[in-house]
Amino acid sequence: MTLQIVAGTADRALAGSIARVLGIEPASVVVERFPDGELRPVVDGLGGADVYLVQATGPPVNDHVMELLLLVDACRRAGAARVTAVVPYFGYARQDRRGRAGQAIGVHVVAGVLASAGTQRLIVVDPHTAALEAICAVAVEMLTAVPSLAQALGEQVPDGAVVVAPDLGAVKLAEHYGALLSRPVAVVRKTRLSGTRVVAEELVGDVRDRPVVIVDDMISTGGTIEAAVEVVAGHGAAPEIIVVATHGLFVEPAAERLGRATIRQVLVTDTLAQPVAPAMPLSVCSVAPLLADAIGRLHREEPLDDLLARA
Amino acid sequence: MTLQIVAGTADRALAGSIARVLGIEPASVVVERFPDGELRPVVDGLGGADVYLVQATGPPVNDHVMELLLLVDACRRAGAARVTAVVPYFGYARQDRRGRAGQAIGVHVVAGVLASAGTQRLIVVDPHTAALEAICAVAVEMLTAVPSLAQALGEQVPDGAVVVAPDLGAVKLAEHYGALLSRPVAVVRKTRLSGTRVVAEELVGDVRDRPVVIVDDMISTGGTIEAAVEVVAGHGAAPEIIVVATHGLFVEPAAERLGRATIRQVLVTDTLAQPVAPAMPLSVCSVAPLLADAIGRLHREEPLDDLLARA
Amino acid sequence: MTLQIVAGTADRALAGSIARVLGIEPASVVVERFPDGELRPVVDGLGGADVYLVQATGPPVNDHVMELLLLVDACRRAGAARVTAVVPYFGYARQDRRGRAGQAIGVHVVAGVLASAGTQRLIVVDPHTAALEAICAVAVEMLTAVPSLAQALGEQVPDGAVVVAPDLGAVKLAEHYGALLSRPVAVVRKTRLSGTRVVAEELVGDVRDRPVVIVDDMISTGGTIEAAVEVVAGHGAAPEIIVVATHGLFVEPAAERLGRATIRQVLVTDTLAQPVAPAMPLSVCSVAPLLADAIGRLHREEPLDDLLARA
Amino acid sequence: MTLQIVAGTADRALAGSIARVLGIEPASVVVERFPDGELRPVVDGLGGADVYLVQATGPPVNDHVMELLLLVDACRRAGAARVTAVVPYFGYARQDRRGRAGQAIGVHVVAGVLASAGTQRLIVVDPHTAALEAICAVAVEMLTAVPSLAQALGEQVPDGAVVVAPDLGAVKLAEHYGALLSRPVAVVRKTRLSGTRVVAEELVGDVRDRPVVIVDDMISTGGTIEAAVEVVAGHGAAPEIIVVATHGLFVEPAAERLGRATIRQVLVTDTLAQPVAPAMPLSVCSVAPLLADAIGRLHREEPLDDLLARA
Amino acid sequence: MTLQIVAGTADRALAGSIARVLGIEPASVVVERFPDGELRPVVDGLGGADVYLVQATGPPVNDHVMELLLLVDACRRAGAARVTAVVPYFGYARQDRRGRAGQAIGVHVVAGVLASAGTQRLIVVDPHTAALEAICAVAVEMLTAVPSLAQALGEQVPDGAVVVAPDLGAVKLAEHYGALLSRPVAVVRKTRLSGTRVVAEELVGDVRDRPVVIVDDMISTGGTIEAAVEVVAGHGAAPEIIVVATHGLFVEPAAERLGRATIRQVLVTDTLAQPVAPAMPLSVCSVAPLLADAIGRLHREEPLDDLLARA
Amino acid sequence: MTLQIVAGTADRALAGSIARVLGIEPASVVVERFPDGELRPVVDGLGGADVYLVQATGPPVNDHVMELLLLVDACRRAGAARVTAVVPYFGYARQDRRGRAGQAIGVHVVAGVLASAGTQRLIVVDPHTAALEAICAVAVEMLTAVPSLAQALGEQVPDGAVVVAPDLGAVKLAEHYGALLSRPVAVVRKTRLSGTRVVAEELVGDVRDRPVVIVDDMISTGGTIEAAVEVVAGHGAAPEIIVVATHGLFVEPAAERLGRATIRQVLVTDTLAQPVAPAMPLSVCSVAPLLADAIGRLHREEPLDDLLARA
Repeated sequence: MTLQIVAGTADRALAGSIARVLGIEPASVVVERFPDGELRPVVDGLGGADVYLVQATGPPVNDHVMELLLLVDACRRAGAARVTAVVPYFGYARQDRRGRAGQAIGVHVVAGVLASAGTQRLIVVDPHTAALEAICAVAVEMLTAVPSLAQALGEQVPDGAVVVAPDLGAVKLAEHYGALLSRPVAVVRKTRLSGTRVVAEELVGDVRDRPVVIVDDMISTGGTIEAAVEVVAGHGAAPEIIVVATHGLFVEPAAERLGRATIRQVLVTDTLAQPVAPAMPLSVCSVAPLLADAIGRLHREEPLDDLLARA
Repeated sequence: MTLQIVAGTADRALAGSIARVLGIEPASVVVERFPDGELRPVVDGLGGADVYLVQATGPPVNDHVMELLLLVDACRRAGAARVTAVVPYFGYARQDRRGRAGQAIGVHVVAGVLASAGTQRLIVVDPHTAALEAICAVAVEMLTAVPSLAQALGEQVPDGAVVVAPDLGAVKLAEHYGALLSRPVAVVRKTRLSGTRVVAEELVGDVRDRPVVIVDDMISTGGTIEAAVEVVAGHGAAPEIIVVATHGLFVEPAAERLGRATIRQVLVTDTLAQPVAPAMPLSVCSVAPLLADAIGRLHREEPLDDLLARA
Repeated sequence: MTLQIVAGTADRALAGSIARVLGIEPASVVVERFPDGELRPVVDGLGGADVYLVQATGPPVNDHVMELLLLVDACRRAGAARVTAVVPYFGYARQDRRGRAGQAIGVHVVAGVLASAGTQRLIVVDPHTAALEAICAVAVEMLTAVPSLAQALGEQVPDGAVVVAPDLGAVKLAEHYGALLSRPVAVVRKTRLSGTRVVAEELVGDVRDRPVVIVDDMISTGGTIEAAVEVVAGHGAAPEIIVVATHGLFVEPAAERLGRATIRQVLVTDTLAQPVAPAMPLSVCSVAPLLADAIGRLHREEPLDDLLARA
Repeated sequence: MTLQIVAGTADRALAGSIARVLGIEPASVVVERFPDGELRPVVDGLGGADVYLVQATGPPVNDHVMELLLLVDACRRAGAARVTAVVPYFGYARQDRRGRAGQAIGVHVVAGVLASAGTQRLIVVDPHTAALEAICAVAVEMLTAVPSLAQALGEQVPDGAVVVAPDLGAVKLAEHYGALLSRPVAVVRKTRLSGTRVVAEELVGDVRDRPVVIVDDMISTGGTIEAAVEVVAGHGAAPEIIVVATHGLFVEPAAERLGRATIRQVLVTDTLAQPVAPAMPLSVCSVAPLLADAIGRLHREEPLDDLLARA
Repeated sequence: MTLQIVAGTADRALAGSIARVLGIEPASVVVERFPDGELRPVVDGLGGADVYLVQATGPPVNDHVMELLLLVDACRRAGAARVTAVVPYFGYARQDRRGRAGQAIGVHVVAGVLASAGTQRLIVVDPHTAALEAICAVAVEMLTAVPSLAQALGEQVPDGAVVVAPDLGAVKLAEHYGALLSRPVAVVRKTRLSGTRVVAEELVGDVRDRPVVIVDDMISTGGTIEAAVEVVAGHGAAPEIIVVATHGLFVEPAAERLGRATIRQVLVTDTLAQPVAPAMPLSVCSVAPLLADAIGRLHREEPLDDLLARA
Repeated sequence: MTLQIVAGTADRALAGSIARVLGIEPASVVVERFPDGELRPVVDGLGGADVYLVQATGPPVNDHVMELLLLVDACRRAGAARVTAVVPYFGYARQDRRGRAGQAIGVHVVAGVLASAGTQRLIVVDPHTAALEAICAVAVEMLTAVPSLAQALGEQVPDGAVVVAPDLGAVKLAEHYGALLSRPVAVVRKTRLSGTRVVAEELVGDVRDRPVVIVDDMISTGGTIEAAVEVVAGHGAAPEIIVVATHGLFVEPAAERLGRATIRQVLVTDTLAQPVAPAMPLSVCSVAPLLADAIGRLHREEPLDDLLARA
């Protein structure tokens, strides 16, 4: 069973990097796009191969999901012995429960159709819902980019810095960064000051005059980050704030929100393709080594425990 | 079991018309669209209902397919007793076989994910592949709009007119029109004049000085129609050509191609929403009565044989 | 379709209460237990019925899960038109992700076998994982007992009381109680005081001289509650502490831990059968009205939005 | 994974030829037939093997389909690592849509039960419906015997010959032959001469005084061929007509119809076993080399693009 | 939901009788048989119906199984609300385990394809394997014709008669007859007289000078019965032997074997169509009342415990 | 694909013996048991392995079944290439049909959930229902320990001994022992002495003054054996009775019943763990060589026909 990397159109550069790390050529794949928007992939040379299909499902998310389904079908028909979908950013992961009756559960739908199309295993990076592996019918490897990002921050995190979770959902993540960087953790949360239903953003922990590293799993419009910046600034944090996240979607008006003077650096990975000339002080840390490591081990049937996200 | 019409965003007007014909209000449905492009539908009041979910999967096809899957999930969780997807135009239907090894088969993928998401029955109109009902795991009712379109043409088809199939794939359709309009049929086909591999567009049948009605199941970029117009013109057809098709996708450069002087009228249905101010002499014949008839009969468990496309 | 309540052996009393609220008799069901421990249920009179099968899967959890699977099979073979499993406490819900590679994901396994045995819908109360409805292949109604419990607390919560979440996982729940009781919320969390990896239980919020209501979704051995009691006591809370949880498993040494002088009251529901003479100041608030309401609405195909757990 | 050929009783000779081309012995297989007509296959030595199960489903079609299902079950239980059904002639392929409501769709049923019995891949030759690979849940390789048949015709096709499609469904096939033989193509079709519903067989193309090669995918009772012979004769074709088809079912009264003086030769393949002493001028071109080539490549995981039927 | 009886071609008369007992007309159904042996059923008027599809799968078993699958597909597509296959004689039931490695398990295959084609419930009469309901994925009602046959025997069984099981597999059945007829039971079995492997047919019980009723579930070639007749004759049984079985397949040379002078009467049911002028003293007891009773109760969702075969 | 033995907690010793015979170390596996009784297995080093998961499902049967399901899930997620469940004693096998309407069919449920959890093949020893392989969706190898047990009896079976089946269900088994030991077979059965419904235990065969070997597939409470001992004693059998069975469950009051003076020896296998100091004259014959042989052959893809139970 030869190892093959098949690149969806969402991630040609990342797939290329992964293949380079693994020392192989990406497989031949063309995704034709018809004038009416229908897609048709063509793959080659996958007979009996152990195929890793790299396609993040960031915006335009529906196009990327459908292309992924079609690619799985094409690989399967081309005789691939095993098709593992490598979805560095897994879209619709925030829809893991209904906020009210009448809603769909998007992640259930996407996980379901991926399995029904023939995906046999899934690799993701820092998914928004930790229950993703319980949701999918197929086995999922939930990798984490946090150690890579922590290492990339390296010397830039001054002594005395504090890791800040911008909401309760990010506390575990913040504690992971805190442990790796040997820094304390503070948390922004909405709170009820009394029974009279007054709500305010509260900061749990001390940031006065200290540099701050705000961490989250993903940045979409930047709203959560912007609010956290305001809270830590209001509590007297040192002005040069660093923002770190695995996934940088940066949909409008993220650039504006994150381009402000108080933010010194925004560090994300390339699970989603990043602009060459961004409108903010953007640094990109590649997940290609992480994904190549995981793919190589799965291909050789080796364990990848140390690469997995913490429960 | 009450009858409910749920309208996807692709077809709000058509769904409204169907509901009006049936004398009911469409169900409450909102499809939220997040800044990153993810969709989340919310439905209401469907407990125990016989739900007909109206969503054509024309451009943007991938958004429309994903929305349809999410809507099916939402209806199912909301307690719908039965979910019938009404997909007046069924995208990806041209991909019903591989043109070469290595390709995906789009219609297989779309049919598969519709079933896996919980669709229990499907209603379509003049699908591009007649094998659609053999492909789908669930029962499919393949309606035809041809009688409605033929009736809409009515008096406009002058004596002596000829129905023209623009390629071999449209011959059965043309014969259906020919029978309904009591007109002869001619066929445009590519042919090999000799063994020396010279190819030409050939016209089988006589159109000289006769009015022509070119018929097809769908018009995408208008290329096939344009070529047929040239052939019949080259064979001396009367200049005032009528073009008829069930599905008007009209992707670029269809408007330009069909806006030419030789074409007197382009008649399509509203399986896909049509522009209010089209750049061509467009007439629209609604399939709402046809779909309302089919939905009403299915709801009352009556046969709909006479509404089905001819095998 | 007549409504039928079928009681598993885990919950005879609760099922009886539900039936009483609904004004019906529970269906005839006997679960034979053979000398070797194998179970064999026999049901009667379920032909064409809308069956609600009440069985919590608390300890002994494996017996209760297997009995549930066998009951579903028996109902299905007996001609039940629809089988809804009512699982007030859903065991194995804490296993919704792997803590390390090599583990099973218990909730995925249990959800999978429930569906494969023929369960068509699921009703649960305050499940430990909010993603349960995304994990299950069948539709899940996740009810919450929090409003019932808050109402049961009623006058007993003195002015000035504070709702305390004993860990971060319980914060949303605490905020739900806080809103219903019009009380502020405090949180116990493990924190890192500096980068030198010193860890301590921290209390976020002020409880000095104030009465405290500690809330959680479930109490197993009571360890988490005991630790929280110590933290709030250490921060000078008023001594008469109230503990509230939906599910009281009370496995050893819970009685000892919760029987201490500082705890005035332990309030749980009867999702799990509670002892008649408990070794702690136990109050029990029945979920029978909640479940009867939900079952009645589902049977009549009415929405139950206001009964659902908050996302 | 060793390659094994398992021969169903429909095709012992063909399976033997395939094995010979591949240089292997067919696997041991006995299909017991009980006095009441029930079949029971026994296979041997297939543990871990890559099994190719050769069974055409021509008449008696139901016996052959059931035997195929039982053989798949036997191979799977015997530990076959992969079971590919090689069905040179795929019965029920004409039933790929309903001609009217109330009908079954035979090809959907047969494809469904093949997959449910455990078939993992399918190889067919020139199936009657080109959508077969979209219909089947498993991957299908649709080979074509047209190049082999064209080569077998070789020198026998005189200069000036015309390839004739006996109906519109055969036009693509005829064009494939035309291209390979460098001959022009003519088409027989039913046509409407005017709006007064007069129907006649029409010949599109010129055959006067020219030798004719009538081509089709299959010959059942010979009715379509007989009608085409009459039309070309009526248009003055040279008398020595050649008839070519991939599948020769030759059910009554085919021999009589094809044994007429005007037909010089009937050329088919051995996808279905052919009589030793036929009542017509029959030539048989074996598909054993084609199938052996395809099987060998699939076993070695090589592409077989050039062996596939044209879309 | 109206009740509809759909008759397969194996059982037109029986289905007619069932419908008469139920006081309804059988549904309109035509099974077209093409010259090549392919079948195509057409059904009508089944929208929303509770369909009972009557088709025994006796010889020609493979044709009857395939027709049944196609009928299920047709009923499902025609909008039947529920499809229950009524298979009075269930073929392939003897293949419920492998006699040796390498065999198929026919009943597993048939049960599997029935479910995959869309059968939702199954009614059978005295199946050869009592585990049939454990084997099928769908619910099975295993009726017994023994009480009807015992009653039909009525006065014909003289005082002093003995019920004889022709082999060990028939002992439970014989005891059922014995209890209903208040007669003792004897058993024919192959036995080993000593360790030196000498085998003989042995009769357990006393038949000397007593009338004998040999009972079995089915008679195929009559070999088992013939051997039993010889054994009881050898033990001095009275000459006028009665033979009773639910299913009379009577394949060659059953007529010869059962036409002998010592056999006074052969009593079977009409689960399989019986000849009008049989070559043996044949009596037929109809299962139409039994099946009509079971169908009526299932349709009205009533229990049918007393109609079921004994475990 | 390396061979790995994974031991469930039901069978640590047996799994160790199997591994020793195969010359390998059992895989690393820990099954954590939480205070509330939930289980969580952790496995290691199974990437790409051919895993044989050894877990009998004797008492406590529900714990053992659930643990088995969780182990299958863990192995699958750990990347096992193939998971074969080795279930030496298969619980719930007696529930292979309903004794009356309203019952569950336990073996159907257990077989179903094993397959749905991801088991790909099953190995069992002398299952109570011979139809087990027809019931399971996955392939089953039904081994028999009878030859091992017969050999273990060896010289202890005196000349003149008789093999006794304690009921009709054990006759085939008794004949298997009889053939291997070259001894005649007698049968205990309940019989009806006349039509007046008097029932008695009857002995078919002669045991007067002869040593007796009573054989069965399993011993649960010992009731069947005790009754058979009484019958053979009543017929004058020699007092030193040997009892042989594959599975020794020995639930109360088996020890008392089998500890009586007339029973010289009770011989069972270790499909279920046996006590070190039993309260009866117990001998244990290990199935480890049998299972190791079967596992080794399946791993090497060799046939194991001679190890299988007789049909």
